[in-house]
Amino acid sequence: MAQRAQRRLHLNAFLMSTGHHEASWRLRESDPHAGTDIAHFVRLAQTAEQAKLDSIFFADSPVLWGSVAKRPTSALEPTVLLAALAVATSRIGLIATASTSYNSPYNLARRFASIDHISGGRVGWNVVTTAGADAARNFGLDAQPLHDDRYARAAEFLDVAEKLWDSWDDDAVLADKAAGVWGDEERVHPVEHTGRYFSVRGPLDIPRSPQGRPVIVQAGSSENGKDLAARYAEAVFTAQQTLEDAQAFYGDLKRRTAAVGRDPESIKILPGIVPVIASTEAEARRRDRELDELIRPEYARNELAGVLGLSPRDLPLDAQLPEDLPSEDAVEGAKSRYTLIVELARREHLTVRELIGRLGGGRGHRTIAGTPEQVADALQTWFDAGAADGFNIMPATLPGGLDDFVDHVVPILRERGLFRAEYEGATLREHYGLARPIPVRAEAVPA
Amino acid sequence: MAQRAQRRLHLNAFLMSTGHHEASWRLRESDPHAGTDIAHFVRLAQTAEQAKLDSIFFADSPVLWGSVAKRPTSALEPTVLLAALAVATSRIGLIATASTSYNSPYNLARRFASIDHISGGRVGWNVVTTAGADAARNFGLDAQPLHDDRYARAAEFLDVAEKLWDSWDDDAVLADKAAGVWGDEERVHPVEHTGRYFSVRGPLDIPRSPQGRPVIVQAGSSENGKDLAARYAEAVFTAQQTLEDAQAFYGDLKRRTAAVGRDPESIKILPGIVPVIASTEAEARRRDRELDELIRPEYARNELAGVLGLSPRDLPLDAQLPEDLPSEDAVEGAKSRYTLIVELARREHLTVRELIGRLGGGRGHRTIAGTPEQVADALQTWFDAGAADGFNIMPATLPGGLDDFVDHVVPILRERGLFRAEYEGATLREHYGLARPIPVRAEAVPA
Ligand SMILES: Cc1cc2nc3c(=O)[nH]c(=O)nc-3n(C[C@H](O)[C@H](O)[C@H](O)COP(=O)(O)O)c2cc1C
Ligand SMILES: Cc1cc2nc3c(=O)[nH]c(=O)nc-3n(C[C@H](O)[C@H](O)[C@H](O)COP(=O)(O)O)c2cc1C
Repeated sequence: MAQRAQRRLHLNAFLMSTGHHEASWRLRESDPHAGTDIAHFVRLAQTAEQAKLDSIFFADSPVLWGSVAKRPTSALEPTVLLAALAVATSRIGLIATASTSYNSPYNLARRFASIDHISGGRVGWNVVTTAGADAARNFGLDAQPLHDDRYARAAEFLDVAEKLWDSWDDDAVLADKAAGVWGDEERVHPVEHTGRYFSVRGPLDIPRSPQGRPVIVQAGSSENGKDLAARYAEAVFTAQQTLEDAQAFYGDLKRRTAAVGRDPESIKILPGIVPVIASTEAEARRRDRELDELIRPEYARNELAGVLGLSPRDLPLDAQLPEDLPSEDAVEGAKSRYTLIVELARREHLTVRELIGRLGGGRGHRTIAGTPEQVADALQTWFDAGAADGFNIMPATLPGGLDDFVDHVVPILRERGLFRAEYEGATLREHYGLARPIPVRAEAVPA
Repeated sequence: MAQRAQRRLHLNAFLMSTGHHEASWRLRESDPHAGTDIAHFVRLAQTAEQAKLDSIFFADSPVLWGSVAKRPTSALEPTVLLAALAVATSRIGLIATASTSYNSPYNLARRFASIDHISGGRVGWNVVTTAGADAARNFGLDAQPLHDDRYARAAEFLDVAEKLWDSWDDDAVLADKAAGVWGDEERVHPVEHTGRYFSVRGPLDIPRSPQGRPVIVQAGSSENGKDLAARYAEAVFTAQQTLEDAQAFYGDLKRRTAAVGRDPESIKILPGIVPVIASTEAEARRRDRELDELIRPEYARNELAGVLGLSPRDLPLDAQLPEDLPSEDAVEGAKSRYTLIVELARREHLTVRELIGRLGGGRGHRTIAGTPEQVADALQTWFDAGAADGFNIMPATLPGGLDDFVDHVVPILRERGLFRAEYEGATLREHYGLARPIPVRAEAVPA
């Protein structure tokens, strides 16, 4: 019990337009224009902040993703969205995805440093390599770079970004009005990076930010993805359907992190869950089913076919997946997502129609439909069983699903001593119990 | 008089940390950390909005510019800064510089479209090609691309961006809940651009924004710069020291705009002025001189030497510029700035020290030190004489210099019927009297 009182779980709210369920926009209460409405996101951010969640998160891919007929698209670019939300909130952490394949390190490092300043140290970056040829074609390429190359570029991108964030010493700004010396040129260092993918002179054009560096988040669960996370990530988003899989992933990633010489506590693992909450389990299940019934299977099948590298004609709705799918090794797109989908279908002998229902709710994440107690129990079980340091909450509907979670589940977690009653720190790092990074240069200098 | 009542001038506030005077940060009242303090910029934006200015503007270069010893650096990245200010204001226009040389059209077009949504149609983009090798070296290049190449890339960049902004028809979002069709796939168009610099498939991943496209601003006054402005720009920032030069520039640019088939009214020309305001002219001049005396000439000389392509040793402080400087044709950096500096020094027979004082105040822009009436008169003279459609106000000190301008000069302009008393429109385009652009696709379709 003393143990439990000390180990607290972390909660991130993963937000997107009308919610994670692909048919959520069709509900009467949903605003189908929510994806471009800043007032909608301000309300969500403030709701999450009132509940003292660690952070909110926005996913991203620099491409029109999927079918516009099917659902509202991702909409507002997340780095500018975070900046807007930074001034509408004061404590909650703010995390956005950005791609290492389709950005330059200088531009992206500056934007994150700037948002860290604007928010007073509350920013995090979900580092992704961006799967898919459609995104590549928005950036002068015919096809996506190979999976290995994307991850090699991601690692070098992070090296450059860290050097840029560290290019100003924490005490570089002297502001000596009498002498007329604003910054100390000896404490602002060129980066002089030359590597396989990038050559960047630096220094960054902004003083070191409150957190030193943004919190680095990672969400790829392939072998490459886990290796990248072990080296760089401080939080990890992952989709896990069963407790056993989640425990295996958790143990594996903590071991990899230790193996590269890092403290396993310095990486927080957050499986995603889609809560569908009602006062009875039957009512929650009914809500979940009603949402699934609003899915238009033809649109969803087109997308599924894309992920599996098949034609929609290969996927009759009432049959199971074809037998002869390639192994993950042969996939160049999002490897871990591919495997998760195929394994889910095989394990539960799902037809394409059933699989679409499962994915439509949370795109591969675990849906928990039940009472607030049942949802809290499910979270606690995974947390206590070494499967999670916290959770990525992906409401099926928004704003309603977030309201339900913070109004009904968070108080139970709090009562059980599993979740904070007040913010204790000021920065995103402090919310997650992460240390402020020591500058790379300082590390390099002999003591 | 009836004429004057109708023709109103436009006012943009060009904001940067502690003000445009390079020594402004040394004043007792200045906050030397203002450049990374969002509260400072929120206050400035709200001051400008209360005065009903058309817009505020932030310059940018993706490089640590000049000497950190000399003055606070540019600091917060302007696109995220605009997004933050969008939620702290409701009417004023929001303009930021971004480089066509060191961005991808897809990423930048999305960010501006997103800010246009967040601000309800108030965003503008100052399109620059970014001079200097130091910036190039942050993006994998050894030297800057040639001036002609930078401008050719800028033109293609704008073509791609316009296609992306127009890739969703205004009525593409159906939001038909009953039928389960969110967007109309027939009204969202791939861009399929293939050109010399870019190949971009599109469409953009966000519905068309309130203004259709951001307002395009341009600030290069070289031949290439003026040609780009004539084709694409809707507002132009320019540095002009004399009425004659300003009239010549104004006439030239309006003619070039007409020559490419555009209405000369559809491009607003805004020379920059640095107002230094006090209740007597003598007091204003004293303030201006005091600021100049705070300049540390060694830092400023290093920068001047950089712009002129010389070594600081070639520039003794109390001598005039060397005789044998190259002509603008031979310059690959910021051509029009080079010429402006050399001509100013020659025309007024300035020593290097005097030239540094003049540039330190407004980096080549015209300083007007005087009473509120004198400043208003100076603006009115240029406005009436066909030298300006409005002005780019560059306060020497911030926030004080902006307060002085809006408290003392704006009321005089308003009294004279030269400036609005209330916002009449909702968008930046409406403030400047600019039309909402017709989508390129629609133009291409026969009527
Ligand atoms: C909660 C969560 C959020 C994710 N967000 C993004 C995202 O915003 N953008 C993206 O491209 N991929 C996102 N991903 C996908 C992973 O990054 C994905 O696995 C990646 O595209 C391919 O990596 P892999 O091949 O290592 O699995 C997310 C995954 C999870 C579990
Ligand atoms: C008011 C004003 C603002 C400017 N802002 C920027 C800026 O933010 N970034 C930049 O690179 N250049 C800026 N410029 C400089 C011009 O764009 C400059 O002329 C350009 O760098 C080179 O163009 P040119 O060779 O056509 O003169 C500005 C110029 C003026 C007059």
